[in-house]
Amino acid sequence: MSAPGTLIGVGVGPGDPELVTLKALRVIREAPVLAWPANPEGHSMARTVVASWIPPGKTEIAVTMDFVSRGRTSANAAYDAAAAAIAGHLEAGRDVAVLCEGDPLFYGSFAYILARLGGRFPVSVVPGITSMTACAAVAARPVVLLDEVLTVLPATLAEDVLEARLVAADAAAVMKLGRHLPKVAAVLARLGLAEDARIVVRAGHPDQRLLTLPEALAEGVPYFSLLLVRKRP
Amino acid sequence: MSAPGTLIGVGVGPGDPELVTLKALRVIREAPVLAWPANPEGHSMARTVVASWIPPGKTEIAVTMDFVSRGRTSANAAYDAAAAAIAGHLEAGRDVAVLCEGDPLFYGSFAYILARLGGRFPVSVVPGITSMTACAAVAARPVVLLDEVLTVLPATLAEDVLEARLVAADAAAVMKLGRHLPKVAAVLARLGLAEDARIVVRAGHPDQRLLTLPEALAEGVPYFSLLLVRKRP
Repeated sequence: MSAPGTLIGVGVGPGDPELVTLKALRVIREAPVLAWPANPEGHSMARTVVASWIPPGKTEIAVTMDFVSRGRTSANAAYDAAAAAIAGHLEAGRDVAVLCEGDPLFYGSFAYILARLGGRFPVSVVPGITSMTACAAVAARPVVLLDEVLTVLPATLAEDVLEARLVAADAAAVMKLGRHLPKVAAVLARLGLAEDARIVVRAGHPDQRLLTLPEALAEGVPYFSLLLVRKRP
Repeated sequence: MSAPGTLIGVGVGPGDPELVTLKALRVIREAPVLAWPANPEGHSMARTVVASWIPPGKTEIAVTMDFVSRGRTSANAAYDAAAAAIAGHLEAGRDVAVLCEGDPLFYGSFAYILARLGGRFPVSVVPGITSMTACAAVAARPVVLLDEVLTVLPATLAEDVLEARLVAADAAAVMKLGRHLPKVAAVLARLGLAEDARIVVRAGHPDQRLLTLPEALAEGVPYFSLLLVRKRP
């Protein structure tokens, strides 16, 4: 029996093919099998980012996630199926590179594959550029400085939880804004932070945008938007 | 008079030359002037990471920081001098790429150059791999998942502040451990989090190490170490 393959989580960054690391490119070229998350139509943002570097004839596994009606049960079933397919290759001694938007371990779904296979196979992770730092780059302003405390939190939290966490932070990144933006804006207004806030929409994509809070509220923002705020000048 | 040059903050990642992005390499090749932080002996970790890609004959500016006795006054004087030297090139129409360890805007000193020159010149930022995600990759464990709240904080904070912030977080990254590790360990022990914690020393360098809390306490850790902890299994 051959030695098992390695499960490799590969961060491909926020969307700009230039924001991929040399290590990610090498791993994508070398690994005999690639796996990537896809929507029900078969589209994979992670694969698209690095598509031009994928050699022809590579074995590829689409992990289809139902992003519309995704409950935990349906997501768990998808991860179970993906883990089984990946495990087959690893058992046969083939490395499998799992492509991940952003960083594999920063709010990334690679953690669910890792939880299913990490104990059974060798694991390696290639970090990627996070949406958080990509957004800060678009806004050209610090996420956090020196001895400050940074809180990163999803906008999906309850309003009172959001407020309590933002009160205690020197700087914050609020992710997954979408329809939760008015709730976040109300909290920021109460804390006197509305004016400082900047929203970045689709960082790393050709249509990326930088908005003030009033602009974002007026036009609405998609789920993949992030708000940055810092209390000190 | 020519158009001014662009001030470009370039993240070079945690230390591994393979964890540099394609965009960072392009900017380093194209920018006529490079600036980088150096210690009093002239050594620059940021420059070392990308040294093999710096074309000969490039104009380079060393921003010498006195890392031993660095008070804010001495640091401010160094940033003032660096900003003046950089401004001279920008005024003459030459782009200046400022090399930054990790990400330029995530606890990075680029913010101090940006504060001095951002209003006067065009600015662009190339995000980099942070030490936080590089450490998570070494530990092969999630920084944070799903709807969890992540708190990033420096170990230099007072013990009661550290404890209050860690109580309110689902996951935490504690940076700049060094001699502050025993204090952090005492807080983690009181919160029942000591067993879960993992410490990564010099992520992205050939001598990087992954330690449990007892191991780290026994041998001590340098300033450039990071602790990761998550409350949920």
